Amino acid sequence: MIERSNFILNKKITVQAPATVANLVCGFDVLGLCLEAPYDTMDVTLNNSGIVTLKSSDGYPLPTDPVLNTAGAPLLEMMAEINMEIGFDVVITKNIKPGSGLGSSAASAAGAVVAANYLLGGVFSKSELVRFAMSGEKVASGVKHADNVAPCIYGGITLIRSIFPLDIVSIAAPSLYVTVVHPQIEVKTADARQILRKEVLLKDAIRQWGNIAGLVAGFLQNDLDLVGRSLEDVIIEPVRSILIPEFNKVKAQSKLAGALGGGISGSGPSIFMLSKTMQTAKEVEVTMREIYTAIELPFYTYVTTISNEGIKILSS
Amino acid sequence: MIERSNFILNKKITVQAPATVANLVCGFDVLGLCLEAPYDTMDVTLNNSGIVTLKSSDGYPLPTDPVLNTAGAPLLEMMAEINMEIGFDVVITKNIKPGSGLGSSAASAAGAVVAANYLLGGVFSKSELVRFAMSGEKVASGVKHADNVAPCIYGGITLIRSIFPLDIVSIAAPSLYVTVVHPQIEVKTADARQILRKEVLLKDAIRQWGNIAGLVAGFLQNDLDLVGRSLEDVIIEPVRSILIPEFNKVKAQSKLAGALGGGISGSGPSIFMLSKTMQTAKEVEVTMREIYTAIELPFYTYVTTISNEGIKILSS
Repeated sequence: MIERSNFILNKKITVQAPATVANLVCGFDVLGLCLEAPYDTMDVTLNNSGIVTLKSSDGYPLPTDPVLNTAGAPLLEMMAEINMEIGFDVVITKNIKPGSGLGSSAASAAGAVVAANYLLGGVFSKSELVRFAMSGEKVASGVKHADNVAPCIYGGITLIRSIFPLDIVSIAAPSLYVTVVHPQIEVKTADARQILRKEVLLKDAIRQWGNIAGLVAGFLQNDLDLVGRSLEDVIIEPVRSILIPEFNKVKAQSKLAGALGGGISGSGPSIFMLSKTMQTAKEVEVTMREIYTAIELPFYTYVTTISNEGIKILSS
Repeated sequence: MIERSNFILNKKITVQAPATVANLVCGFDVLGLCLEAPYDTMDVTLNNSGIVTLKSSDGYPLPTDPVLNTAGAPLLEMMAEINMEIGFDVVITKNIKPGSGLGSSAASAAGAVVAANYLLGGVFSKSELVRFAMSGEKVASGVKHADNVAPCIYGGITLIRSIFPLDIVSIAAPSLYVTVVHPQIEVKTADARQILRKEVLLKDAIRQWGNIAGLVAGFLQNDLDLVGRSLEDVIIEPVRSILIPEFNKVKAQSKLAGALGGGISGSGPSIFMLSKTMQTAKEVEVTMREIYTAIELPFYTYVTTISNEGIKILSS
């Protein structure tokens, strides 16, 4: 039941919407993981204007037409469902680079709907929020997918068992450290999808589902070596990794530095690695930096952990 | 270290080697589950004869040449590895019907090696026992596969994440009741394998690995409804089920009777269904009986639970 008396009107709240790693190597299109950092910061206000306004706090060029904006489109859908005269003002500080493969559009979409839901008195469930946020992903990539918005909203590790109907499973995440390198090249999600074959060998598919089963068992039974052994992708990575300079070297050297394993984040170009300790995660970062410095390709790196909270609502 | 002083010589022990359900719907070639019943009973004696003798307790026709026998071949491999003058006498009481899809050959192979290992003072690990038992499967079907012998030896639910190298993961099983119907038709494992396509659609493979991830998460997070939703196979079942009369009816009616879900056991013709309670499992059995009685096809049914113990060694 939607009650106007539960609304928090004309009061700005701030949310932090973190980056996410989709696919998780053997979990193409179904698994995702929420990072502590980097994150976008969004200031959101609920009002009676009947419209959505969108601004960047720092001059970052955003589409200001809400229909074309990854944060705006989900808010419009929400407003249509609520069917009362409401509106939102949104100011976005983008820290997650668009095109990084770290769920930049998902963070904007998920951050907006989580903030809006808080201001509306929490009328929607997490699963409904994912559904709204997916229309932001449609604006960004043309496809409604949930493997970034779900971990962003639920936190931790999520499985999209089915997308129609939507079936999201939270998978309790063990304590793991994540190193990410984002080499400054452009990989378009649509291109990364186009180069995949429509058919795969049954024997490769079997190997892949053995690995995803091992990965989920490793997470839930806290068997980190099993997690490492299961981080193997015989279908997507061999094709997509050719789009990412030095991918094989980054992977091999990161493992030598002690990482459990890892691979392409989303459709790339970022590469993520999981480690048991912060110290190893930092050593992996050093290795990644050396590799891209050697070929003079600009990059960003992040050393962080899994966020079990997802989007954080800060006191206004 | 193998020590003759640890051997239990010339003393008969009895083991119960249970039936197993391989594949578990969406876990083709990688998942398996150990049942409490039915089980084969095997009397095994260790001696210094240098040979393996094999007998049936009840006149059931067994290959008596150990090289050609599913229990004999693994024992010969074990003896070669031990490299001491030993031998085994084995008497088998077969209760698991060969060709049922319930791991009949696996039970013989696994029962023999578990009994032998006990008599040899426990020199081999479970993973090594699986490796020996796989050569029994090779005798039976021409292929070394582990998805029946592993759950038989480990008990509970097992994942074969990789077969070369062998990587077996025990998955803690929730409390579940299993109903099995074995319609009396012949489905050869080799035929059942032959009719599968070598290539599958990527989108189907993705759906399948979403389901196996959901199934493992459901088992480990004790979310039985998730187990039910995940028991979906879009790749193997649509092809193999045409070999089993009334398959779709058995599945649909069992679910109406309250089963969480289920499918083909191994390569068939047996069909298994999982239920939350013994009462539901018995109601599922009634439904199965009615369906095969109506078409006058002889059948066996079993109502049982998951065995977390696997093969039982009885006091001699």
